[in-house]
Amino acid sequence: MSREKNEEEMRLDPWGVSFVKDYNRLMEEFGIKSIKPLVDIFPQAHRLLRRGIIFGHRDVEIILDAIKKGEEYAVMSGIKPSGDFHLGSKLTAEELIFFQKLSPKAMAFYAIADLEAYADNKIPLSESYKIAVSNVMDLLALGLDPKRVYVYKQSEEIRVLRLAFIFSRGVTYNMMEAIYGEKPFGLYFSALVQAGDILMPQLEDFGGPKPTVVPVGADQDPHIRLTRDLARKYQQDFGFVIPAATFHKLMRDLTGQLKMSKRNPMGMLVLTDPIDVTREKVMNAFTGGRATAEEQRRLGGEPEKCAIFYELLTVHFLEDDQRLEKIYWECKTGERLCGECKKEAWSIIKEWLIKHQEKREKMKDLAITLLEQHTLT
Amino acid sequence: MSREKNEEEMRLDPWGVSFVKDYNRLMEEFGIKSIKPLVDIFPQAHRLLRRGIIFGHRDVEIILDAIKKGEEYAVMSGIKPSGDFHLGSKLTAEELIFFQKLSPKAMAFYAIADLEAYADNKIPLSESYKIAVSNVMDLLALGLDPKRVYVYKQSEEIRVLRLAFIFSRGVTYNMMEAIYGEKPFGLYFSALVQAGDILMPQLEDFGGPKPTVVPVGADQDPHIRLTRDLARKYQQDFGFVIPAATFHKLMRDLTGQLKMSKRNPMGMLVLTDPIDVTREKVMNAFTGGRATAEEQRRLGGEPEKCAIFYELLTVHFLEDDQRLEKIYWECKTGERLCGECKKEAWSIIKEWLIKHQEKREKMKDLAITLLEQHTLT
Repeated sequence: MSREKNEEEMRLDPWGVSFVKDYNRLMEEFGIKSIKPLVDIFPQAHRLLRRGIIFGHRDVEIILDAIKKGEEYAVMSGIKPSGDFHLGSKLTAEELIFFQKLSPKAMAFYAIADLEAYADNKIPLSESYKIAVSNVMDLLALGLDPKRVYVYKQSEEIRVLRLAFIFSRGVTYNMMEAIYGEKPFGLYFSALVQAGDILMPQLEDFGGPKPTVVPVGADQDPHIRLTRDLARKYQQDFGFVIPAATFHKLMRDLTGQLKMSKRNPMGMLVLTDPIDVTREKVMNAFTGGRATAEEQRRLGGEPEKCAIFYELLTVHFLEDDQRLEKIYWECKTGERLCGECKKEAWSIIKEWLIKHQEKREKMKDLAITLLEQHTLT
Repeated sequence: MSREKNEEEMRLDPWGVSFVKDYNRLMEEFGIKSIKPLVDIFPQAHRLLRRGIIFGHRDVEIILDAIKKGEEYAVMSGIKPSGDFHLGSKLTAEELIFFQKLSPKAMAFYAIADLEAYADNKIPLSESYKIAVSNVMDLLALGLDPKRVYVYKQSEEIRVLRLAFIFSRGVTYNMMEAIYGEKPFGLYFSALVQAGDILMPQLEDFGGPKPTVVPVGADQDPHIRLTRDLARKYQQDFGFVIPAATFHKLMRDLTGQLKMSKRNPMGMLVLTDPIDVTREKVMNAFTGGRATAEEQRRLGGEPEKCAIFYELLTVHFLEDDQRLEKIYWECKTGERLCGECKKEAWSIIKEWLIKHQEKREKMKDLAITLLEQHTLT
């Protein structure tokens, strides 16, 4: 990181490096509300909610209200099919599934952004289709209910592109620059496509206007703000309900870098990797350990800084709150050293991964069915 | 017109008022070639070619070559379905049909720009569909071969929007501003959709890369330039043949205004209007007559300035070159006065219109078939 970046307090760039030093300041500046006071109102509190990983929201009350009244709502997410599921994709997928499971009236929408994969990464549509099959297998293995989801490829979903076309008349350069900073024309248009993704569930084809929630990382808030602006602007024409969002904290990669990147594969845990490759990554992860064992016994570790404790166990793999707390205090007091801790973490992760990989292998046909179902010919 | 406009030599604005004082200067400035040396190479010379109304081209040799070799080519045009066919729509339609008829290997493409009609004129898609049916009836009555045409609605043609998405990554603000001047974000995106329209015939779904010609008015040249730039830019990915174009001169309306406008209905001859409404418009058209009959006998009329002679007879309704020339000289020498001339013109136009309206009435089912055939559900 350059000195300038160090001095910057936060940066939200859906296409670049984002960071937030102080989530309270972020919420204040952009009008995101803390989700803490609402956690107990959720019919279930997901570990991501309990642990403050999902920290904020916009208007999520409309979803809680719909749940209470037994009314329909939509939850929307998606993926750029440029590679297999990693921890970031898993996080968003779990949030989608969480909101889908909260009510039998919830309908999930999952966008396969294959046009983005083509434009950004030169991945041909035929290739991104194969990746999408793999991605949807993970989604199903993570617990997505296939009966209440609409999975679609952006390249074949005319309704999304139609909305993007319409929205392109409703924005100005100034508006886009105020939200995103100075970006190329094509990225501004991609943002409009994302707004189309988020608002499509409210079209008549899907039963008309309804509360919608988009669970995202904090770096995606610009898209949420743009979409809410557009929903307001086109409310008269389409009857849109302003979409809600929840926000999770930004994750570092396993080597402590701000942005997960394919250029640093050791930092990214990929759900389809062979078990021993993943083991290697876990064993090499950045920890909160001290320079020497002696020092760590004396001062205690720093679990807050530790990718094993935070990114792997807290965010992803250890559901048991008591066990997590035990590990925290053992580390904090110097009772637990990194070597043994990594071994324990790995046994938890390994168990999860083996089960997950078994499950996902059985999902191929169903994934293809979900993806083909909506293919326009 | 403001004084500034008067001093301006030319303006090509596909969305605004365009004018050209000197077509030679236009051709020089933008690298459009004169079509004159090629007129005799065409298997037939349409009245628009014979009379220099189609004055210029870009690369139309690739079409003449395809005709000679019996190879496939595409001719592409379209309409914004915001109202019934007027003389402008008729002109473009006739050019489309002309190129379609030049070879049995020609395939015509006709875009119904219903998303534009929605964005520009707030016409709902259901409404523009009805207008499109009427438009396609005219197209068929004018002689379009229904067996070699792909008529499609932009709102349902994902391939066009997909190309527009891809192209949005290949342009910069500077490039768009250099071509179009400073325009809103949405119009720039519309331009990319038009580029998608022009290049779609070259996708694999339609048999792959092939020579394509787009017959347009001179004011549309910015779209042609943009599309040719994009075809070059994406040649490696799609194998595009750089599309050709022909250009016709800009028409005034019947009252002598530069731009046909619905706000001036007397200036626009609409093909579906009742005969007596059209008669009224013809009888009130702007002529090249002098202040008094005496003066006209003495000085002769000015057929070059006359909407009856030029816009109606020369451009549209009188096929017979000898008769047209006769009228020209009778006017020029003061032998013919405007009253009798208008009556003669009207009898020619009336005959044409009655026949056309009879033909078009029989085309409704076929028009619907053409429009429905490609509806994605």
